[in-house]
This record gives sequence, C-alpha cells and structure tokens, in this order.
Amino acid sequence: MSTLQNVVLLVGGVGGAKLALGLADILPAGTLTVIVNTADDFEHLGLHVSPDLDTVMYTLGGRANPQRGWGVEGDTFKAMEMVTTYGGASWFNLGDYDLGTNIYRTALLREGKTLSQITRQFCEALGIHQYILPMTDDTVHTRLDTVEFGMMDFQPYFVRERWQPTVTSIHFEGAEAARPASGIVEAIKAADALIIGPSNPFLSIDPILAIPGIRTALLDAAAPVVAVSPIVNSKALKGPAAKLMRELELDVSPVSVARHYMFLLNGFILDNADSHHVGDIQSLDIAATHLDTIMTTKSDKVRLAEQTINWIEEKIV
Amino acid sequence: MSTLQNVVLLVGGVGGAKLALGLADILPAGTLTVIVNTADDFEHLGLHVSPDLDTVMYTLGGRANPQRGWGVEGDTFKAMEMVTTYGGASWFNLGDYDLGTNIYRTALLREGKTLSQITRQFCEALGIHQYILPMTDDTVHTRLDTVEFGMMDFQPYFVRERWQPTVTSIHFEGAEAARPASGIVEAIKAADALIIGPSNPFLSIDPILAIPGIRTALLDAAAPVVAVSPIVNSKALKGPAAKLMRELELDVSPVSVARHYMFLLNGFILDNADSHHVGDIQSLDIAATHLDTIMTTKSDKVRLAEQTINWIEEKIV
Repeated sequence: MSTLQNVVLLVGGVGGAKLALGLADILPAGTLTVIVNTADDFEHLGLHVSPDLDTVMYTLGGRANPQRGWGVEGDTFKAMEMVTTYGGASWFNLGDYDLGTNIYRTALLREGKTLSQITRQFCEALGIHQYILPMTDDTVHTRLDTVEFGMMDFQPYFVRERWQPTVTSIHFEGAEAARPASGIVEAIKAADALIIGPSNPFLSIDPILAIPGIRTALLDAAAPVVAVSPIVNSKALKGPAAKLMRELELDVSPVSVARHYMFLLNGFILDNADSHHVGDIQSLDIAATHLDTIMTTKSDKVRLAEQTINWIEEKIV
Repeated sequence: MSTLQNVVLLVGGVGGAKLALGLADILPAGTLTVIVNTADDFEHLGLHVSPDLDTVMYTLGGRANPQRGWGVEGDTFKAMEMVTTYGGASWFNLGDYDLGTNIYRTALLREGKTLSQITRQFCEALGIHQYILPMTDDTVHTRLDTVEFGMMDFQPYFVRERWQPTVTSIHFEGAEAARPASGIVEAIKAADALIIGPSNPFLSIDPILAIPGIRTALLDAAAPVVAVSPIVNSKALKGPAAKLMRELELDVSPVSVARHYMFLLNGFILDNADSHHVGDIQSLDIAATHLDTIMTTKSDKVRLAEQTINWIEEKIV
C-alpha cells in the first residue's frame, strides 16, 4: 500500500485515462484528483461536448468502450443517424448514451451550474470515488494555425480532418484569463505527488499549463512533479503527438517531451524501448527511469500505476 | 380515384395521424396538406420538442412505432437512461432516433430557421410527398387550469400526471397574436375539402382554431368542412377527450363535438356505434353519416379515408 496520501494527475483523453484507471485501482478512494483538459470542448448541434472529461469519467466509471477509446460501451448511434438523414453534419459522431451526457450537461449549464459542479454530480451518479476536475469553468479553446486551412478550431482539425493538416502554431484562446476550477489549486497544494499523464503534451497538457493559476500552483508545489512519456521509440502511442513534434521542429523523442516540461519536472518515466535516453533526461537535472509504459490490458494500467507510485516514493519524494 | 384536387386535414397527434396516413395512401402526391397542432410543443432538457408534428411526420414517413402510437419504430432509450442515471427528469421519455430529430430541429431553430422550414426539410429527407405544416411558427402554449395543481403547462398535465387532474378551463397562450405558418391560408383557400381529424377537440383542434388567421380562413373557405368524430359510443378512442367533456359539463357524445365545431361544419362523420345520433347532427343543419371510424390496421385507415372522401364528394361538395 502506498504511503502517498494525495495524488494529482494531469491528463487529456484516452492515454491519460488509462493511467487514471490504474491509479484509481491502487490508491484509496478519495485520494486521486484528475485534472482534465477542457480546451477541446466545443459546441456541436447546440450541445456542450467535453470529450476528454467524458473519456476520463466513462473510464473511471467503468462505462468506457475499451476498443474505441472514446464513448460508452455498448453504445448505438441512432440519434446521429437521424441527424444525418435530415442532412445534418456527420463528421463528429456521438453515441446515444453519450448524447444523454451531453444533453443533460448542456441543460444544466443553461440553468447556471458550472462544468465542475455538473462533473461532480455525474461522477457521483456513476459511483466514481476519485475527483475528476475540469481544468477550468471558464472557456478555453485550442486553435491551430495550419498550412492547409489557416486557423482551425480543435475538433475540425482533430476529428473532421483526422489531424492531417500541417500545424505551424497552437493557441489556447482564453487561457490567460481563465481561473482554475474550484478545488484544483487546493489539490495541487495538498498533493504528495503530481503526475503528468502520457497525454499529448501540446494539445492535452499545454492547455492545462497555460492557465496561470494552475501553472503557478504547480511551480509552487511542495510535491514532486513527474511525467510519463507519451512518446515511445520515436512514435506517439496514439494521435498526432509525433507528427506535431516534427511540424514544430522538435526531435521525436521522449527527451523533447522532458525538455518541454523542464521548468516543472522533478522526474520523468520513459518506456523501456527508450532506456538509452535515461542519461539525456538526467543531464537536464531530472530524475529518470524506464518502465513498460504500454497500457493495453487493465493489469498493464495497474502495474504502470504501481511502478510509477513506487518509483516516486522511493527515488523522488 | 377521387376528383378532389386539394384536401386539407387538421390534426393533433395519434388519431389524426392515422387518418392522415389513410388519406396519403389514396390521394395523389402533393394534394394533401396536414395542418398540425403545435400548442403541445415545449422545451425539454433544452430541446424543442414538437410531439404532434413528429407523430404525423413519422407516420407519413413510415417510421412510426405502430404499437406505442408515438416515437420511431425500433427506437431505444439510451440517452434518456443516461440522463436519468445522472438524476435528470425521467417523466418525459424520448427515444434515441427521436432525440436526433429534436436535437437537429433545436439546432436549426437556433440558427434562425422557422419550424415550418425545418419541417419541410425533415419531410423531404424522409421521402414524404404530402405537406405537413405546423399551425404556426409563433409560440402558442396550451395551459390548463386544474383543481389539483392550479394552472399547468400541457406536458406536465398530459404526460407527467397522465391527464388525471380535473380541468376547469383551457387556455392557448399566444394564439391570438400567432400568425398561421406560411402556406396554410393558401392551402385552405385552394382546398376542395377541409377535414377535421378525429383528434381531441379541446386539446388538439381548438389551438389550431384559436389562431385568428386560420379561423378566418376556414370560415371564408369555399370548400366544405367535415369533421370525423373522436368520440365513439360515449368514449374517447384514446386520451382525455371524454374525461374533459365531463369536466367541461358537456354530454360525452359525438353530438357535443359537432356542436363544438358548429360555427364551421358542413358535414360530420359519426361511428356506426353512434348511428342513432345522425338525426341530432342533422338537426344542427350539418350533414351527417355513420361509418366504421375505428382505425386499427392500415386497411382500416385507407378504408375510412376512402369512405370519407367519397361521402364528401357525393353528398357535400
């Protein structure tokens, strides 16, 4: 059993949610706080869609679709099929269960509830014993400047164009004015360990770090900050992280990720495939180790969570 | 083949939709206009729900659930199950296909399209060759004064309380200021026959007649106005019509229905079970006949439509 009383995890969607599930399995109820990117949130057909928040919520609530990585297990797509029949946009698909989440969240937002209040209500209803906090209740939008389409909103870039446009710069509109959601600064202050999940550094973690109150709280935190690499053997496990690194003229290597977070990091976990980079990380004055970071099965997730926590306890704290 | 070139049918939901389906089957494409009550429309979970309009649209589009009488055949209820899991209101159920209709309609209304434009788009997508027109693009709300709950909105009365409250009066808020939807006055002027469907006179037809432009157009129409009785053998075939008649201190009889529409009617069709009332109707200076008005199967609907059209052609026009 871990001696850590409070762990904070920063994540985007699928990759981060896997580590969140592993940590939720080994840490006592109420001791894990997951801070989730909401800069991918957008309005679709009048509904407030929070893709990363829902991926983490469905994962910890045992409702996630394990194959697809997003949405709810056993979901169907009848409502969107009907929308498409009528000539509506078909590029962003939402399952029927998933629409229930989005419809009710949107209704509660219109009633004046905040995204974090709604998320707490939903998590309680799903029997989730960890704290899932949207990074902010304010509006932050990721926008990407691209060669092919000029400035794009996140979802058209990511889903409609399947992240194929060439990105020249990334912007988090509203981040500088955004306040951390209630509970985030307190959780970071009270944490024994702060973990940056194996999420896309540029699209999932940077928007969280772009909120001044969160950045400052992390810099001021007494607890160590440790990141798990989303880059394994010069590839992203999922999504555009490696492609973005090339476009931003970075080496596609976990060392680039560690350097990207350098201002924050005390420790960095690489994949075994990148063990030859341990020295490169240590030369940045960051503790480093290598583990099997590929999380396919539930036991992979639990094992990586355990090894991560053990390493932080033994080598970093 | 009928010699009538243009038929206009006024309806509410299920009962009227059955006659609409029969008429659609026997009349050439493009010659039937169905004017639908929208005073039951309401906002639920932020969505604009049009129950009667959708019942007629799904029925003519071959998508209706034949058992339930509302909603789409083969529908599931995953989205609303999720809403209920989170603690949302469960008293008004909407299937997943049906939610697609409501989500996309709401999105298009927010873009500034009118309900009649949206209805036309949806009907074309569903391959419907008749004109389905909402009675108005303005907002009209049925409200009921009740002994038990005071003033109630329609859906809480009808669905949540299963029309059990005792009604003392019925109001159509906004009707006096509402304009007929585009095409309605023209269709009534051009009609060879105007039929009031076997819908609830007080809840489904009265809101349509409460719109001054429609009432005037019907009174000025050259074509005969014929109603099909929703009351058979002192009972309503479905819903609260008979109960409302008792509460409004009317005899539960087709004669009360004919008297209710007296200012408009040229003809009235009773059920065979009420053939002894033919003379009562005729004494109101309204032509009357009796038919088998119970529409269970598709062929019942087609037969009643045929007999209605034949009677209008032979005895009324």
